[in-house]
Amino acid sequence: MLSGKPLVSIISAGMSKFQKHEGLLAREIFTLAIQEAFARCPRLEPKRDVKAMFIGHMGEAYEHQGHMGAILADWSGLLGIPATRCEAACGSSGAALRTGVYAVLSGLADVVIVGGVEKMTNRTTAEVTEYLAMASDYPFEQYHGITFPGLFALMASRHMHDYGTQEEHFAMAAVKNHYHASLNPKAHMQKEITLETVMQSRYVAWPLKLYDCSLVTDGASCVILTKPELALKYTDNPVHIIGSGQASDSIGLYERKTVTSLTSTKTAAKTAYEMAQLSPIDVDLAEVHDCFTSAELIAYEDLGFCKPGESGKLLEDNQTRLGGRIPVNTSGGLKAKGHPVGATGTAQAYEMYLQLTGQAERCQVKDAKIGLTHNVGGSGATAVVHIYRSTQ
Amino acid sequence: MLSGKPLVSIISAGMSKFQKHEGLLAREIFTLAIQEAFARCPRLEPKRDVKAMFIGHMGEAYEHQGHMGAILADWSGLLGIPATRCEAACGSSGAALRTGVYAVLSGLADVVIVGGVEKMTNRTTAEVTEYLAMASDYPFEQYHGITFPGLFALMASRHMHDYGTQEEHFAMAAVKNHYHASLNPKAHMQKEITLETVMQSRYVAWPLKLYDCSLVTDGASCVILTKPELALKYTDNPVHIIGSGQASDSIGLYERKTVTSLTSTKTAAKTAYEMAQLSPIDVDLAEVHDCFTSAELIAYEDLGFCKPGESGKLLEDNQTRLGGRIPVNTSGGLKAKGHPVGATGTAQAYEMYLQLTGQAERCQVKDAKIGLTHNVGGSGATAVVHIYRSTQ
Repeated sequence: MLSGKPLVSIISAGMSKFQKHEGLLAREIFTLAIQEAFARCPRLEPKRDVKAMFIGHMGEAYEHQGHMGAILADWSGLLGIPATRCEAACGSSGAALRTGVYAVLSGLADVVIVGGVEKMTNRTTAEVTEYLAMASDYPFEQYHGITFPGLFALMASRHMHDYGTQEEHFAMAAVKNHYHASLNPKAHMQKEITLETVMQSRYVAWPLKLYDCSLVTDGASCVILTKPELALKYTDNPVHIIGSGQASDSIGLYERKTVTSLTSTKTAAKTAYEMAQLSPIDVDLAEVHDCFTSAELIAYEDLGFCKPGESGKLLEDNQTRLGGRIPVNTSGGLKAKGHPVGATGTAQAYEMYLQLTGQAERCQVKDAKIGLTHNVGGSGATAVVHIYRSTQ
Repeated sequence: MLSGKPLVSIISAGMSKFQKHEGLLAREIFTLAIQEAFARCPRLEPKRDVKAMFIGHMGEAYEHQGHMGAILADWSGLLGIPATRCEAACGSSGAALRTGVYAVLSGLADVVIVGGVEKMTNRTTAEVTEYLAMASDYPFEQYHGITFPGLFALMASRHMHDYGTQEEHFAMAAVKNHYHASLNPKAHMQKEITLETVMQSRYVAWPLKLYDCSLVTDGASCVILTKPELALKYTDNPVHIIGSGQASDSIGLYERKTVTSLTSTKTAAKTAYEMAQLSPIDVDLAEVHDCFTSAELIAYEDLGFCKPGESGKLLEDNQTRLGGRIPVNTSGGLKAKGHPVGATGTAQAYEMYLQLTGQAERCQVKDAKIGLTHNVGGSGATAVVHIYRSTQ
């Protein structure tokens, strides 16, 4: 198997439990992630070594708080370092990870922390829906009342029309991801569900039902990056990032040639695969952006795990379940681990760090060598894909 | 004169007029900046050459619109490229510029657009005040009702107490910057004012009066960066960035050891000067972050243009006025050119591009070779300093 040279190396990672963190501010939740990352990497002296921080944070509205980069630098004990918030809607910390890759490769910052955080459960469902909607187009989408369940329902229903995909196929993704989450102590949902539970849940926006939707959650995550040639100074067990792709698309769904695939995902994946000198067939496991179950199916197709229209079959055959050919969302995914929006991209990288260092416990994919993460902003105006390689 | 090697080169720049852009969305205002930047650089083929975009945008609330990176990529005719919004409050596009430097140096993106935009005049003064306040600390500042005029007034009054600075000194910065703005056709304010006008204006937060405050404005700005070794492919007249520093500080003013200087500015400046192998004395002109006139005085001291407490004297002696030893804010500054918050950092870089290529017309500083920009987020939790060198 060919594969590209390491761009950067992950030397540690941390994640808070994803749940309702009653009474904690985003900054406090982030400390749970950063403390784990520091504890996992005792050879790192954060104050001496860390040279920059990039923070994915989607919404100022939740806590009436912007400027999250500087705040989290301080709350990580790194007062003074350059710290910038990166925002690309739900792809914010994926974009932050990409930015961290730039920073390490630049030579200006040998060790960089990339993370993300969101505090959402302090707001009502109506407020969260409104704040999330800011990631869609104001004049042509929000103004007319459509919100994200509606936008993704348009994509899902067209996929059903074009390919014969059934509501049951979407439901299978939910069942699988709840199963994975039941094995992950940090996931918000800890219980398995049945296909009937999903199918009998109320419609949010046809064909998407309550159990097709990801969770409103509080959470934080981070990874620590360095140059590959410095990685062994900090850990015996780095994970290399060998491919990085990011792409944009029109903010408005109505402007796109197709709504049954995301051009941004395809472009970002192509870039990442080329950089990694790998094909989809080489990927052992993936974390994909299942903000709605239907999005997971479309991601399989856009990432090349199957042909267009065949994602339902992949689920029917249990190929993306733990033990299958290419386990997807072993963490539980956005659907069942939870989707604290700004934290999601680096939470995917956290899962990849655990998996590729053999620390994923009950979620562990055996002999995992190559992993992929896929983080989407909005209805696909941003997509970020990274490819990882184990050094074990 | 020693000076460091170029990090990256600016090959073009653009800026909308800063004013109330009635009926235009932020994305539309940004097209005014990007069109100028493309027109100034006919050898660039944007769709072929530009590999990434970083956009400073401070507030989602103004237009109920996040995800501004992807939107502006599309509206710049660059649909598909990686595009990320960078936010560090009023230092957002300064931080975006720093991020663009990382990206070019990384080798992953040879040509990068860095810009910023804010649409503010569609909101009431009360709304703007509330949205800007998100850059301060929610639990310890916003919650108790203090807004930015109040925070900067605390700094200004302590400076008066410690150093004998007078309200007239602050007023002198306003008079100077209005004079410069009167020479800059893109500035929001086009009229000179007198010291009496400032002194007789109503208090907003003692000692700061209406004419000590920067303007609520709509505007956009951008610069195009590439590697120094590629710059002459695109222009005969690049401007090199030879120093780049960014630093953070506590979000809350109350946590700092001093409020008469910004540690973040000092740290960012030290990094940038060292990288450029230059001292403050080498700087021919600067654009500093005068969100309030008092902030300009403190910037002089933190950037080393004078000793602590001596900034008033610098103004008394007209040393920072056009024709003086070190002209500051020749564009009119935030005070009189206007402060569309997300656009301010790259608007400073735009002014530096004009000055160091001899295109600043009536604002031109003669024989300008070395320039500096200083962009601050919030009350100083972020500061970004860049140093520029002419190639003429």
